[in-house]
Amino acid sequence: MPTQLSTETLHGSLADPAISSMNLLNELIERYPRAISMAAGRPYEEFFDVGLVHRYLDAYCDHLRRDRKLTEAEITRTLFQYGATKGVIAGLVARNLAVDENIDVPAESVVVTVGCQEALFLVLRALRADDRDVVLAPAPTYVGLTGAALITDTPVRPVRSTVDGIDLDDLVHQLKLAGEAGERVRACYVTPDFANPTGTSMDVRARRRLLEIAAAHDILLLEDNAYGLFGADRLPSLKALDDSAAVVYLGSFAKTGMPGARVGYVVADQPVAGGGVLADQLSKLKGMLTVNTSPIAQAVIAGKLLLNDYSLTAANVRETAVYQRNLRLTLDALDRALGACPGVGWNTPTGGFFITVTVPFTVDDALLEHAARDHGVLFTPMHHFYGGKGGFTQLRLSISLLTPELIEEGVARLAALVTGRLP
Amino acid sequence: MPTQLSTETLHGSLADPAISSMNLLNELIERYPRAISMAAGRPYEEFFDVGLVHRYLDAYCDHLRRDRKLTEAEITRTLFQYGATKGVIAGLVARNLAVDENIDVPAESVVVTVGCQEALFLVLRALRADDRDVVLAPAPTYVGLTGAALITDTPVRPVRSTVDGIDLDDLVHQLKLAGEAGERVRACYVTPDFANPTGTSMDVRARRRLLEIAAAHDILLLEDNAYGLFGADRLPSLKALDDSAAVVYLGSFAKTGMPGARVGYVVADQPVAGGGVLADQLSKLKGMLTVNTSPIAQAVIAGKLLLNDYSLTAANVRETAVYQRNLRLTLDALDRALGACPGVGWNTPTGGFFITVTVPFTVDDALLEHAARDHGVLFTPMHHFYGGKGGFTQLRLSISLLTPELIEEGVARLAALVTGRLP
Repeated sequence: MPTQLSTETLHGSLADPAISSMNLLNELIERYPRAISMAAGRPYEEFFDVGLVHRYLDAYCDHLRRDRKLTEAEITRTLFQYGATKGVIAGLVARNLAVDENIDVPAESVVVTVGCQEALFLVLRALRADDRDVVLAPAPTYVGLTGAALITDTPVRPVRSTVDGIDLDDLVHQLKLAGEAGERVRACYVTPDFANPTGTSMDVRARRRLLEIAAAHDILLLEDNAYGLFGADRLPSLKALDDSAAVVYLGSFAKTGMPGARVGYVVADQPVAGGGVLADQLSKLKGMLTVNTSPIAQAVIAGKLLLNDYSLTAANVRETAVYQRNLRLTLDALDRALGACPGVGWNTPTGGFFITVTVPFTVDDALLEHAARDHGVLFTPMHHFYGGKGGFTQLRLSISLLTPELIEEGVARLAALVTGRLP
Repeated sequence: MPTQLSTETLHGSLADPAISSMNLLNELIERYPRAISMAAGRPYEEFFDVGLVHRYLDAYCDHLRRDRKLTEAEITRTLFQYGATKGVIAGLVARNLAVDENIDVPAESVVVTVGCQEALFLVLRALRADDRDVVLAPAPTYVGLTGAALITDTPVRPVRSTVDGIDLDDLVHQLKLAGEAGERVRACYVTPDFANPTGTSMDVRARRRLLEIAAAHDILLLEDNAYGLFGADRLPSLKALDDSAAVVYLGSFAKTGMPGARVGYVVADQPVAGGGVLADQLSKLKGMLTVNTSPIAQAVIAGKLLLNDYSLTAANVRETAVYQRNLRLTLDALDRALGACPGVGWNTPTGGFFITVTVPFTVDDALLEHAARDHGVLFTPMHHFYGGKGGFTQLRLSISLLTPELIEEGVARLAALVTGRLP
């Protein structure tokens, strides 16, 4: 038997509480399957249909046959064999970005990835050249960013967050502090639309100022846009406003396409000395990480794009209506149940999956367990998105998986928990 | 415009020749599409059939319905939603290992990955705890190991290779040298069956001695078994002989299942202090790298397993016959065409995809280009598997994609090149 492996002999990320945080949370949640879950940020399931997988595959094969003039042998090879590292559907993704987001980029700047998570890893891996390199991210932030930073040994410096998204004055301040500490800030991660976990968005003026700050300080912006589609009014993404290749755009099809395909992408059109763009470098890393994203999985996403004239906005009309309805119903229910409670408040996102609720007592995993066991309701303690270093009076509510009945009952149960804890 | 990105401001792996080596090689090869390719290690294509993808998906859904008693909603959720980080088919993989490899491991020690490449990354990431940590690998070695080592900042110390696989005396010597240099050898990567690129195999006695060396020096063995199935006589894998959890088994379905699914796995049943096994730690890393392997892609592989009573040996009867035939025909053709040439030789693998040819002149990428342009034949210069640091009189021939006619003509073209260069 080899010497037992231990925290000391395994990579440091494995000892960090953040990497276990979501697992522990999910385990806790799984122990209470009958509780109403306002915890999981998973997409709505009513419109899932296994038949669609077959239809999407067929639609992609038809496209290869009809539009690309491939022979049957070439079509089969496209699905079955190893494929191009950047992906076989990069062109279709670029077309989707033009149609839905008014983002105009060449297919060569797109790398199709195993979900947005692999894209995050690739970008952070590329940008961590030496020990001085750090990235900035709002606190609280998406755990996937924290995790990708951990496994690339990239320090993340937190930037204050407001109800209007990342605090740009604090961003400038943190850039100054990092410079004084001898750190080289490579990028700032940001989700301008309906951020996970807060649900906050940035207005257009703030987006433009963020681009100016990035240009002035010579940093990249890593724009995560997993939820932008699910809003009442669309604002231009940072990438759509970007005229100087400062924005690396992180795309997810998990909410707009299908989580089970595990297909995302990164747009990286930044020039690199010696030729090519950053996407070419990310592709080299991907070749040594996952070789290429499954063409079968890519074909499923391609089929959905093709059957909807390249528009995921069109493909998600029903889903967007559900999320908008759920958001409104949840905010209304919170208002009725907790509107008069001193010290209890929440933000009012106009899209996305999440609402931030603030309470005048501690929200930790023990409270979550109490909520699950004694009140039959689940949420996510916000401290998980601060790496356990803050957010102890906040919780995240997710509205994406619910029905009107579950929202009514879920908020009532939450209200019972909250009012029982008020001073 | 941000300061242009450059080698100096990107991760060191991107400046390493090894990470670009395969891309450059593939680009060269793509410029000569009409040359006979004895270069690509891709599986044989004649039996590919898009209809199989649909059948495999249906077979997996039937299994969930019939054997696992899932409702239609649960089946749909399994395919469409985010899934367990370790994979939804880990149990089926464990059963396949029992049937085909006589390896008996619990499903909990299996992590389903995005190809074997992600498995390599996860293991190296976990084992690189500090700057002392290194791994050993035979030279020449699979480029995927080199690449995963580069992006995890893991030094790889080469071990001599013989016609019988890794040189065990040199392994002991390298362990001693590493120890003297203050390095901590965490593992030795090895492919006991029909290794890529050499085609060499280890006999059972050597396998047992390797296990003893690993135990004596307290290192793990990372066993890559991508080609073991394609042999005339099967030998027990290291993992099947392993009674002390010294072997981490790296599994690929790229050659035995379908490359386009991009599904592989790792078996890591090593206990870890504090509870659980190494697979649990790898799963934590995977959660922050790709979240989970596409359940759609997993379902395709599962369907193939289910329709073949869990046996990939059974599923690959036709493919194995083709590879065996191609190997024999290629060795025969080499014998006829080059058997009398002084200084020209090759090994005689009994399975797998690859043959090593040694010649009395330099084999570099310029020679490959000459071969492609003027002789219409493609191979892989062996130096690509030495990280450009050796192997300059060897080349790798791959037999996996060929027909008897292409073998006859390809070897004739190669012989014309070789005999024209002899002194």
